[in-house]
Amino acid sequence: MQRDESLDPDDDGALRALAHRAVDDALDYLATLRDRPAWQPPPDDTATRFAQPLPRAPEGAEAAYADFVAHVMPYPMGNIHPRFWGWYMGTGTAFGALGDFLAAIVNPNMGGGNHVANHVELQVVDWCKDIVGMPRDTSGLLVSGGSMANFIGLAVARNATAAAHGIDVREAGVQGLAARTTYYASAEVHSCAQKALEQLGLGSRALRKVPVDASYRIDVRALAAMIAADRAEGIAPCCVIGNAGTINTGAIDDLSALADLCAREQLWFHVDGAIGAVAALSASQRPRLAGIERADSLALDLHKWLHVPFEAGCALVRDRAAHRAAFALMPDYLGLHARGLAAGSHWFSEYGLQLSRGFRALKVWLMFKEHGTDKLARLIDQNVAQAAALGAMIDAHPELERMAPIGLNIVCFRYVAADRPPAQLDALNEELLIRLHETGIAVPSYTKLGGRYCLRVAIANHRTRGEDLQIALDAIVTIGRELAATR
Amino acid sequence: MQRDESLDPDDDGALRALAHRAVDDALDYLATLRDRPAWQPPPDDTATRFAQPLPRAPEGAEAAYADFVAHVMPYPMGNIHPRFWGWYMGTGTAFGALGDFLAAIVNPNMGGGNHVANHVELQVVDWCKDIVGMPRDTSGLLVSGGSMANFIGLAVARNATAAAHGIDVREAGVQGLAARTTYYASAEVHSCAQKALEQLGLGSRALRKVPVDASYRIDVRALAAMIAADRAEGIAPCCVIGNAGTINTGAIDDLSALADLCAREQLWFHVDGAIGAVAALSASQRPRLAGIERADSLALDLHKWLHVPFEAGCALVRDRAAHRAAFALMPDYLGLHARGLAAGSHWFSEYGLQLSRGFRALKVWLMFKEHGTDKLARLIDQNVAQAAALGAMIDAHPELERMAPIGLNIVCFRYVAADRPPAQLDALNEELLIRLHETGIAVPSYTKLGGRYCLRVAIANHRTRGEDLQIALDAIVTIGRELAATR
Repeated sequence: MQRDESLDPDDDGALRALAHRAVDDALDYLATLRDRPAWQPPPDDTATRFAQPLPRAPEGAEAAYADFVAHVMPYPMGNIHPRFWGWYMGTGTAFGALGDFLAAIVNPNMGGGNHVANHVELQVVDWCKDIVGMPRDTSGLLVSGGSMANFIGLAVARNATAAAHGIDVREAGVQGLAARTTYYASAEVHSCAQKALEQLGLGSRALRKVPVDASYRIDVRALAAMIAADRAEGIAPCCVIGNAGTINTGAIDDLSALADLCAREQLWFHVDGAIGAVAALSASQRPRLAGIERADSLALDLHKWLHVPFEAGCALVRDRAAHRAAFALMPDYLGLHARGLAAGSHWFSEYGLQLSRGFRALKVWLMFKEHGTDKLARLIDQNVAQAAALGAMIDAHPELERMAPIGLNIVCFRYVAADRPPAQLDALNEELLIRLHETGIAVPSYTKLGGRYCLRVAIANHRTRGEDLQIALDAIVTIGRELAATR
Repeated sequence: MQRDESLDPDDDGALRALAHRAVDDALDYLATLRDRPAWQPPPDDTATRFAQPLPRAPEGAEAAYADFVAHVMPYPMGNIHPRFWGWYMGTGTAFGALGDFLAAIVNPNMGGGNHVANHVELQVVDWCKDIVGMPRDTSGLLVSGGSMANFIGLAVARNATAAAHGIDVREAGVQGLAARTTYYASAEVHSCAQKALEQLGLGSRALRKVPVDASYRIDVRALAAMIAADRAEGIAPCCVIGNAGTINTGAIDDLSALADLCAREQLWFHVDGAIGAVAALSASQRPRLAGIERADSLALDLHKWLHVPFEAGCALVRDRAAHRAAFALMPDYLGLHARGLAAGSHWFSEYGLQLSRGFRALKVWLMFKEHGTDKLARLIDQNVAQAAALGAMIDAHPELERMAPIGLNIVCFRYVAADRPPAQLDALNEELLIRLHETGIAVPSYTKLGGRYCLRVAIANHRTRGEDLQIALDAIVTIGRELAATR
């Protein structure tokens, strides 16, 4: 046999030099973010550049890296920029990125087994419980993000509720359920709830959307009435989903009232905290989240307002046995041993969909230790204060109209031209936002509230300074006036 | 307002120095892997060390990193070691890890939008199609791994089959299906198939396990008979899952025969290629996978035999419309724009469960370009040859018994002591494997075949050399003799 090959270099000197260069390039890149546009369109040749045949021959690490520097790095999504406030994303940090590098170097499979990385994840999950005030014996799992964390909570709700009626839904499927099963959430609930119920075989008809009040919070009396009406029709209410920060406006449902209602009605209480659960770190915000600690299951995100690089979310489930019962399978090739690597009392693969799992816990563990959570809380307070300041600036400006109460760190508004009918304002503001993106000055996103298009600034950004908001507002008003004058 | 804080250092000099040190530590760590045990047990104080309260105060990056170096790095799972062949994992590479670092630096959200990173993912997905010979207009998505890739294929199968009968299972749920739906796979199918069907609301009863032949390949005639019997009973067959490399023995089903049968019976043809699909890169292995290119959906893993660091899997679905129809949702806050960041014709979030998604495509793109896929194919051939050589060594050894035909790169065997009844051999081999782990010499895993415990060596490791197999076998025989003499 010829000499064995490997993917390791015979001499790692060149790769080492390249890695050092990449570190410098990366830190320079972050240090100069403010000098570059928040976003710029990809070059015209992008689609063809990335439509190459399978690279059978090697280019080498140098050439591959050069391609990245030349053609990928200059055209980011922009969420790392100080004036990016679109959708709802975190910003990332250099040390967090280093955490992902180190995780990939040691490269454990976090499905289970007896090795230290598993304890790092258990530690991080424990910290997530601490943040929201759930007890340490709560079950939990790091996942890709809020969508999967919500999926897990809603799946356990489905199975545990069926089990309470003697039905093994894992064996018999949803067809084994005696009655139609329903979940309740406000009309502002994130689309991932519908997606989860569709995948879980319950169907989108299982999601009953409850009206909201003027602050976009769930109408708890309407919810109670819907549950009663459904029961009267022979439908089986299963779960209430509370929002700890809605995607549109950051509204926080009355979680205590929902917890009370769920206790009274014997329903599973799930909280979607992807946006706002981590605000429980802040002493000033925590009272608004009262009741979150009473959730039966909770989804939260670490790659949003805690700025951990993608991906890092967390699912928490109060009833450990119910959590495990929804996902555990132990085939012959995974049976536990008394000692050795195949020992270990906690196999993460028994608590979610993944068997092979990456070491995403490491970046969270490193970042929490680096900064301390008090600082993360101060940055949450800072973003909340910035959103309030932006709201005040909007309220004081005759050409800007705020469209909703400010929930946490989310401000919805639009440019108004007094002589324009409301219908034209939708198109004007959409074009305004596109042009704002194209200037590279700032990246808000958008939504519709009451059918009206509006700009949406979600400040989950540790790099944003007070002056950034003024810069963005000035640009918005300038573009708005141009559009109002010409259209 | 006080001066704004951020997570960026005022002066990044200390962080930069730390990052350079981490790069050197990481490359030193990989260069000296052979000098360390493949695995060693975590220290006794591990559980308490990682049961700390929420770190409210900062420790700083230096201290956090020092903790990682002292307490995490020395106790890895071991899959990066040259003599790790447990379960089924890849090995990772330094440049792949650098890819994860760079991905976290630019930190895009790969849900969608108009930025270059999306094109990198589209490119990588195209390359995955090329590997298995599916056309470039196939739909695809990078996912966390094989479990999620299989979930996606089986979900699309459920929905598309229902849609062909006029049922919108996303709206109506599984209770809207007229008949019980069944999926077919060999008894050797990976447990993630059952897990997916349980989550999809079809129940484990929906998975019909088909007998295998002496080579652990699906018995296609028995499959046809089961389908006919189910149809006669009013059950609705939906999908056949073919194995392109089983987890236990690496067996490859007759994929052409399954494709023919699915065409004839109008069933969805899904292939679980998490283990073996990438072997299609190898000219010598490709004929064994004939028919894989006819799959309606296919799951493959890049973090296994292609050595990309965790996590990287890929789901491919031939019918793009069916794929999108299973997952697409477009709420108000995600509506597309004509230009700007919110443009872009391809939103990955419409093809899977995740909305926020990390840039896992980058490490794959960099590694493929670095090495070229011809080299990746040679390493696959090398592992297959190593498995065959190990099999020959086992067959030639009077105290070792091979337990199954060698599928691709997986060898199942056990130590036999002539005077022992078979029942004692299970316990003896389990203790043998534990002791082997504890020596740190090598890490096979184990399974049961025909009810009998056996050692299982799955060589998906670019660092393994021919001599590593001899070292491991010598240790196995030595430990086996010790156990046989004392028990």
